[in-house]
This record gives sequence, C-alpha cells and structure tokens, in this order.
Amino acid sequence: MEKRLKPMDAEQLREYGHKMVDFIADYYKTIENFPVLSQVEPGYLRNLLPDSAPNQPDSFQHVLDDIQAKILPGVTHWQSPNYFAYYPSNSSVAGFLGEMLSAGLNIVGFSWITSPAATELEMIVLDWLAKMLKLPEDFLSAGQGGGVIQGTASEAVLVVLLAARDKALRRVGKGALEKLVVYASDQTHSALQKACQIAGIHPENCRLLKANSSTNYALSPELLSETISQDLAIGLIPFFLCATVGTTSSTAVDPLLALGKFAKDRSALVQALSTNPEFLKNKASQANMVVDYKDWQIPLGRRFRSLKLWMVLRLYGLENLQCYIRSHIKLAKHFEDLVAQDTRFEVVTPRIFSLVCFRLLPPSNGEYHGNKLNHELLDAVNSTGNVFISHTVLSGKYILRFAVGAPLTEEKHVNAAWKVLQDKATALLGESLR
Amino acid sequence: MEKRLKPMDAEQLREYGHKMVDFIADYYKTIENFPVLSQVEPGYLRNLLPDSAPNQPDSFQHVLDDIQAKILPGVTHWQSPNYFAYYPSNSSVAGFLGEMLSAGLNIVGFSWITSPAATELEMIVLDWLAKMLKLPEDFLSAGQGGGVIQGTASEAVLVVLLAARDKALRRVGKGALEKLVVYASDQTHSALQKACQIAGIHPENCRLLKANSSTNYALSPELLSETISQDLAIGLIPFFLCATVGTTSSTAVDPLLALGKFAKDRSALVQALSTNPEFLKNKASQANMVVDYKDWQIPLGRRFRSLKLWMVLRLYGLENLQCYIRSHIKLAKHFEDLVAQDTRFEVVTPRIFSLVCFRLLPPSNGEYHGNKLNHELLDAVNSTGNVFISHTVLSGKYILRFAVGAPLTEEKHVNAAWKVLQDKATALLGESLR
Ligand SMILES: Cc1ncc(COP(=O)(O)O)c(C=O)c1O
Ligand SMILES: Cc1ncc(COP(=O)(O)O)c(C=O)c1O
Repeated sequence: MEKRLKPMDAEQLREYGHKMVDFIADYYKTIENFPVLSQVEPGYLRNLLPDSAPNQPDSFQHVLDDIQAKILPGVTHWQSPNYFAYYPSNSSVAGFLGEMLSAGLNIVGFSWITSPAATELEMIVLDWLAKMLKLPEDFLSAGQGGGVIQGTASEAVLVVLLAARDKALRRVGKGALEKLVVYASDQTHSALQKACQIAGIHPENCRLLKANSSTNYALSPELLSETISQDLAIGLIPFFLCATVGTTSSTAVDPLLALGKFAKDRSALVQALSTNPEFLKNKASQANMVVDYKDWQIPLGRRFRSLKLWMVLRLYGLENLQCYIRSHIKLAKHFEDLVAQDTRFEVVTPRIFSLVCFRLLPPSNGEYHGNKLNHELLDAVNSTGNVFISHTVLSGKYILRFAVGAPLTEEKHVNAAWKVLQDKATALLGESLR
Repeated sequence: MEKRLKPMDAEQLREYGHKMVDFIADYYKTIENFPVLSQVEPGYLRNLLPDSAPNQPDSFQHVLDDIQAKILPGVTHWQSPNYFAYYPSNSSVAGFLGEMLSAGLNIVGFSWITSPAATELEMIVLDWLAKMLKLPEDFLSAGQGGGVIQGTASEAVLVVLLAARDKALRRVGKGALEKLVVYASDQTHSALQKACQIAGIHPENCRLLKANSSTNYALSPELLSETISQDLAIGLIPFFLCATVGTTSSTAVDPLLALGKFAKDRSALVQALSTNPEFLKNKASQANMVVDYKDWQIPLGRRFRSLKLWMVLRLYGLENLQCYIRSHIKLAKHFEDLVAQDTRFEVVTPRIFSLVCFRLLPPSNGEYHGNKLNHELLDAVNSTGNVFISHTVLSGKYILRFAVGAPLTEEKHVNAAWKVLQDKATALLGESLR
C-alpha cells in the first residue's frame, strides 16, 4: 500500500517529482508514436472518467496509467516534430525547468513586497529582451519604459488599448467613448477586435482596413491616412493604431516606419489599471520606491514568470537562440522550394519568416473548386495523424499554412510532411478527374 | 565541460529535470531557514546580474547557484509554515505534479481540436467541483451551465461583468453605457472596481455600499434595495450585483439568499467574448459539436489547467481535502483563543473561516494612537523574518490579519507566531509608556 500523500512534504515531492520527470521524458522520447492531431470524437472522455470526484485518494501510478490510456489519446501534440499548424508554441528543456521552478516556489508577485525578486528579475530580463530586439532606449526601465510579461498576447493588446482609451477620454471627456476610432488592417489578429469589444469601443468604429496581395497583405499607409482624414472630418476621434509585424494568416509585416512613431509610456498604463486597496498597502509601495506589477495588468496575482525567460536566455545564450530561429526559417525555405518544384501547387504569398502559404491549384474548374479541393486536402492530410497543418483565407482563396518551428522538427520531418501532401494531392486530383 | 543543451531532448530533460526536482525538494526541506518576508532593499538585484543577456550558454549548475545566492534572498516564501499574510496560495505535492505535466505537454487549448482532452477534462472536473460545492444543477455542463478555469479571479469577475453589460446593452441600446449601475459592498475586492474601469462603467455608477460592524461587514439587503429604487427613479439601469462569500479584508459573507437569485447562463458569456477568425475554423467547431474555451475567456491561448485540479482531487480525495480545510480553521480558532486570553489584544470581528482579525488595544490615548501602534507592531513582527502577517482597515481602525493555511503550517508555528506578536507588543507598549 502507498503511503498517504501529504499536502506538502519535501521527500514525497522528491519521490513523485522524479517519477513525473521520467514520465515526461518518456513522453518526448515516444512523441512521434502518437497521431499529431488527436483523432478522438467529441465527448470521448466523459465515458472514461467517473462523474464525481473520489472520496478517497487514488494512487499515483493509477493516475499516470490514466494519463497514458485516457488523456494522451485526446492530446494534440504541439511539441511533435510533425506539428506545422497555426504557429508553434515551443517548450524547451530550459523553459520546462523554469516552469518547474516557478511552480515550486509558487509565489504570487502582485506587489514588489510579495517577492521582490519576481518583480526585479522581470524588469531586468525584459530590459535584456528589449536590447536583443534592438528597441529604442525609451523602452528600457531606466526611463519611462520598462517591460512586463502579460499572461497572454490578448491581454497585452487589451491593456495598451485601455491605456490609450483612458488617455483619450481624459483629454476629450468621458462621454466621448462612442467617438473613439481604432485602426488596423483586416489581417490583424482577432485579439484586437475582442479587446475593442471589451473596452466598449463601438464595432462600427473599428476600422479594419482591407489589405490585399498588392502589398502582400500589409496595411497601406495611404489608405490609412485617407480613412483618418474622413473620420476627422465627421468629428470622430482617432486614438489607436495597431500595426503587426508578422500577421497571423500570412506573416505580413505592416510598414512601421511609414505608419509613424508611437511612444510607450508606462504612466498611461498604470493610470488605466491601478487600484490601491488598504489590505495591499505597504511601505515600499507607498513610498513609490518600487514597481507593483499588479498595476500593469488585468489580474492582481501573477506567477514568477521571468524565471522561465531568464533560464532560457542563460541556458541557451543569444547566439544559439538566433541559430535556432534561423534554422526554422531555413527549413521553411526548403519546404517553399519543394512546393515550387511541383507544378500542381502554388506558393501564394512570398515567404517572409518560417511560414509558407500555399495551395493545390484547381485542375481547371475555377476558384470554388480550388477552395473545396484544398479544404479536402487539409482534412485528408490531418486525418493521417502523421502531420498537422492549418489553413487561412486570403482574398477569398482557401490557403494551406505550413508553419515550421516545433522544437524537434528536422529536415526529414519536413520532407515526410511534403510526401504526405503530395500523395494526398495525387489521390484527390485522381478522384476529381474520374 | 557540459554538453551543449539542445532545444528539446528527452534525455537532457530527464537529467536536468531530476536535478531541478532535487533543488525544489531541498528548498522545501530548508524553507524555514529563510526570512519568510524577504528583507532585501528595492533594486537589490540590478547590481547582482549583468545588464544584457549572455551570448554564450551558461551552465545549469551556475544558474542553480545564482538562484540560491541571488534569487532566493529576494523571495517572500508563500509556502513557508510561518506565512500568515493576505490569503495563502498553496502549492501541494499533487498540484506541483500537475503543473509539471501541464508544462511538459505544453499544449495550447483555445479550441477543442487543439487538444480535445484539455477542454473535456476541464468540463468534467469543473462538474466535479460544482458537485463538491453543492451548487444547483443549472451550474453543470449538461444544461446551460458548465465551468471554466479562468487565468485569475480578476478575469473571472471581468468576464461575467462583460457578459452582463452586453446583455443589458442589447436590451436597452448600446448608447446607454453611462446609465448602467453596478452594486456591491465596500468590502468587495478591488478586482470589481478594476473590471468596471476596464468595461467602461462610469465610476460614479459603481455603488460600493457601506458595510459596517452591525452586519459584520456583510452587505445589507435593505440598503441595497433602497439604493436600487433611488437609481431606478432617476432613470439609471441596475444591471450587476456582486456578492462575496468571504471578503478579502475580513471574510465577511454577504447574505446570498436575501440578495436574490442569479442565473448563470453561458450563452451571454460566449456572446460577449467570441471571435471566429478564419484561421481557427475547423469541422468540430463549425458543427457546434464542441466547446471552444477561447470564447469563455479574455485570452485566446490557454494551458492544460485542469490537469492540476484533476490530480489534486484524485491524489488527495474529497475527505482529505475537507480535513485539510478544517484543520486550518481549527488552527485559526486556536489562534483566536490565544488572542482572547491576552487582555492587551482584541479580536475585532468574529472569526468565520481561517482568518483572525485582531489588534493590540491602545493603552488609553485614543484611536489614532491605536492605528499607529498596530502599524508599528506589524512592521516589528514582519521585520523579524520569523513570521509574515498583513493588515486591513475596518471602520477606520487599523487591523492585523492572521490568515492560517500554508501547507506546512502546524500548531507549533501558530504558537511561535503568537509569541513573536506578544513579545513585540510588550516591547512597543513598554516604549509607549516611557
Ligand atoms: C475575493 C477576491 N477576488 C479577486 C482576487 C484577485 O485575484 P487574482 O489575483 O486571481 O486576480 C482576490 C485575491 O485576493 C480575492 O480575494
Ligand atoms: C499576433 C497575435 N496576437 C494575439 C494572439 C493571441 O494570443 P494569446 O493566445 O496569447 O491571447 C496571437 C496568437 O496566435 C497572435 O498570433
């Protein structure tokens, strides 16, 4: 019989922690044995699990067995070398270690005092990151800038939109919400629209300007300035422009320089998001000697997130990280070459980073057929379980997306994926000729 | 020389993962050796770390040494048995294992298809939780209910407020935002105010009704109904009431039954938060066969969060979890008894759960002195590093909060904390008599 598991106990954490490390390492060792896109049917898990929590504890081995038998078949394996969908969301050895440590210390870093190291390390490594990206000096924490790791990209978009909204409303009066206008291209991530919805910006004041193949789906500065002039003429108030470096559909890059400069200034952010209840007051905060990240984000609480970034930067170093990204871009270029060599396919937009947008050309019977054909090709490829890719629509055309960059992906995986695509294309074209 | 660390590699993950488990287990073994409240000065870390990221990788041992020497002194130890501040935010062996697994699989569960198990397990274990809390049937996923683990409590408050706002605006027209009114007691967590700010509710329409000692700081239904009547009379539109079970200051419980019934219906939430960009479309979602949690929350992406809850429920079982909570309440009651036996102190509000609100009585010279005295007592106690408690203000009185519940806390830690409080009180009262 197993010993009773205590709420917390150093030696039990050690014993079971080692077992879990082995379980996860074995998962990575065998990750290619799973279909990369889970092939289960909706509702599959309901029948496999009891419908209420157990009264008595279960054994750790029993839980691990259930994970293997019941959970893993329902997992889509984002870390598989055969994963080419959406964008990669990579784990790494160093990142995993950082997550472990953050979960182990399990502090809540809303104010400086609740764990000074959490706030200070985050400020420091985000200065590192700003320098790595060669951002202007204003972005560093020494001046009016300074970085923060938001929980998600959607929250990041939302908080800057709120900062801009409240800054504009302080200028023009808070009754003017319905006059505020947001600009972006129609290729901008849906997170912006969601942020506008949340912030109460009227949907008809969200100008998602049409981008097309003439600019490779980047926002046109001329169209933008025209639209802004029209809005000003009818008394509306332009207050926010969202430019994208690498759109979600096709990695289009909006022309930042032509679109003008924007200042990031943390004070507007803090004004939009700060609260100061009595129970959180403390000497260091009251004296304005420290940054309290609770005022830079939606939530109050926050994990010790910077540990992960810090460990990734230190354990790999800048040069290895650069090589890593370049190797993905090289693999994408390799895939682009493969597509270009097969005349049944076309590359739809010029590849910029490590995403290739392509499609199978319709035999002759026009666009509608082309869309249906590529949709069928996508389903056929993904249901093999040997590769997972996703799609988008550009100018009405259904396009396949091949995003290279999972941590275990090598050239052989790209070649194998291309072979699956070619084989399924041959089968589909054969059918459509019959 | 160490081998070069690969982006991902099963055997390297195993090797370093084991080392990290040992590091974390050793941390828990020695956690009482650290001052529970970090005693560093603002800015301490800047001088200890380089000001840009390294070009070349660093060794894992070197990073671990830095964590020990530079990071841990800046950590406030939320898991220490001597932590009694704010509210506990507990790790547990099972929770830690769940976090490890979630970080190991590292999937992004925005839509069902991106990892069916992530969505389905979350629905199942939240049904378990609803049953554990004996919530009405409507809360279960089989009907119009169903649960979701939000990133934070603040996001949870925000998303329900947005759902209610948009439902109200659909009824009365979207120009009516400035007429919408929110109700809550002034003891409600600041997350509500922040949510109102974000949602664009005018600050003067947030009615934070005064709660006082006559109701033990719970919201008064009479005052609420009076205020609503007045608002209706001048054409305002009441649309949101936030009741709290266990306020942040003093665990006051608002009288839910008297405050009326509210229906949770997931459709309003999804209407307020859904987006459906082309690149995320897929068969299962389009056919409405599945839940896509992206439409129940602010962000798009999400971790496999339910693994943690599932492992905690299974590895401990309901009865042990109940015992665990009851043992914290018993320890708090023990502390309350200790305070009651020392006539120099008073228990300020009746203890309900595991928080004791108390203060040192001012010798004779009135309230102002009492507030200063307790503030000084707080600082004196926390600067020992042997205990960490926090404070609040109720009806103008500065109150000390003793929140029991860290995972390693036993009766001996409560007794030791009380001894520190008594000793520092003796010293302070001695000084104030001189
Ligand atoms: C009642 C209540 N609501 C909201 C919060 C904020 O939670 P989070 O940090 O998860 O946003 C807290 C945290 O103390 C709380 O006690
Ligand atoms: C450009 C862009 N913005 C926002 C998001 C949404 O990110 P999150 O899931 O972190 O909210 C994504 C995710 O794909 C993205 O590509």
